[in-house]
Amino acid sequence: MNVNYTELIKKVKGTTVPKPLSGTLSGHAAGEPFDKHVYNEIKKQFPKNTFRQYEYLNELYTQNSEVIGYEAREKLFKSPSVHFLLARGKEVTNKWSSENQFDEKQNDTADVLVVLDNFYKIIDIKTRNLSKSAQPPNIISAFKLAQVCAKMIDNKEFDNFSINYFEIDWELEKNKLICRDAHFASLFKCNPNNLYINWAAAMQLQFHVNDLDQDFEGNREVWAKTYLKHFVTQAKKRANDMITKFVKPFEKYINL
Amino acid sequence: MNVNYTELIKKVKGTTVPKPLSGTLSGHAAGEPFDKHVYNEIKKQFPKNTFRQYEYLNELYTQNSEVIGYEAREKLFKSPSVHFLLARGKEVTNKWSSENQFDEKQNDTADVLVVLDNFYKIIDIKTRNLSKSAQPPNIISAFKLAQVCAKMIDNKEFDNFSINYFEIDWELEKNKLICRDAHFASLFKCNPNNLYINWAAAMQLQFHVNDLDQDFEGNREVWAKTYLKHFVTQAKKRANDMITKFVKPFEKYINL
Repeated sequence: MNVNYTELIKKVKGTTVPKPLSGTLSGHAAGEPFDKHVYNEIKKQFPKNTFRQYEYLNELYTQNSEVIGYEAREKLFKSPSVHFLLARGKEVTNKWSSENQFDEKQNDTADVLVVLDNFYKIIDIKTRNLSKSAQPPNIISAFKLAQVCAKMIDNKEFDNFSINYFEIDWELEKNKLICRDAHFASLFKCNPNNLYINWAAAMQLQFHVNDLDQDFEGNREVWAKTYLKHFVTQAKKRANDMITKFVKPFEKYINL
Repeated sequence: MNVNYTELIKKVKGTTVPKPLSGTLSGHAAGEPFDKHVYNEIKKQFPKNTFRQYEYLNELYTQNSEVIGYEAREKLFKSPSVHFLLARGKEVTNKWSSENQFDEKQNDTADVLVVLDNFYKIIDIKTRNLSKSAQPPNIISAFKLAQVCAKMIDNKEFDNFSINYFEIDWELEKNKLICRDAHFASLFKCNPNNLYINWAAAMQLQFHVNDLDQDFEGNREVWAKTYLKHFVTQAKKRANDMITKFVKPFEKYINL
């Protein structure tokens, strides 16, 4: 059972959201309201299985109200990798109760979550102002992804979740933002060796969804190992670059 | 001739700016309009010598309209260090003309510039929401500061500019933001060894102005060398930490 992305793209094309009252149209915030269109359309496809990340957590903990505390609630996930990606921190999870549920949080991993037969489809929505040639947006922490890959290998979990990106291309038309096009890409279908890590920007992977290749042919285990090799190589390179750029040129001043 | 900061603090305390119409009160943007109060008060002290950074550049290039192009305009500064801190990039400086002047730019070094007898007082204004315990704001790129220190040493320029920070502490009162307190600190009076560099946040120095020590006793040359030693030590440490944190834990997965 897959989300029908072709259908989804058709449905969101041409939709509009109000122009923000103040603030600039730069940055990625302006197009954010489009994510509710995407959420609504996916929910039409899977009414009982579509969640906001915080909604899913609230529902999981509510349905298991006898399970209390971080460690016990961790086991509700069955998958350590999925738990790592979706759960909130230890302190807030300990404090969770039916009267003290989670709210939406800016840096949650998933904007939309589709949970079907213990398979978690994580969908993150990126919006793009077609009138500007902005740098690619932050996608996910490269370190967090490395930790997930290590967990996948440790626990031999190669078939219980996917990470997907959905790009909304919009432009300003009169007093509205209008969606001109949309694109979909699956992280585990790209070639990990092409992923760009911006170490100075909180180690974020950065790409435009529309530009992400979908050419990887190996299975999930090969993907995880290939990514880890890439991550380690890039981390070593960054460490070396730091010496070249930030240490060497200044050494002569230190012992004058 | 010094800016009278005691007087300035007295004048801005109790001033208000309108609450932003939309957006959150988090982040540093909300309090930004306070900087016009600070600018106006400093301008009262030095009416002919107080500028916005872009205003100063426009005035300097206008008064020397026969000097054209980046390299020639660079010489107008007399000081390579000050030029490095205040000038715009090569391309836009080449394109500057009286019909095509500079506008304000978010990441200019100085919010306010006081130029007196070829001495440049660079003043950056930081605002702080007293109702939140936010992490310290970005101050300046640690790398940029290292480059400035190297230029100061190369050119023996130890007495032609200062970098100063002015903090506005505000809170929401009805529909206004009100300034409750204000603080001043001079970068070259702090102990460079205490400066925190956030490598993952664009290598920014981060501190609350109110928390910056003002205990450094050495002269500017000693400050520059002490800072460079600190910067190089921290860069080496970060490079090592990257290996420990991002390489070692993942090596075992690579050659499975």
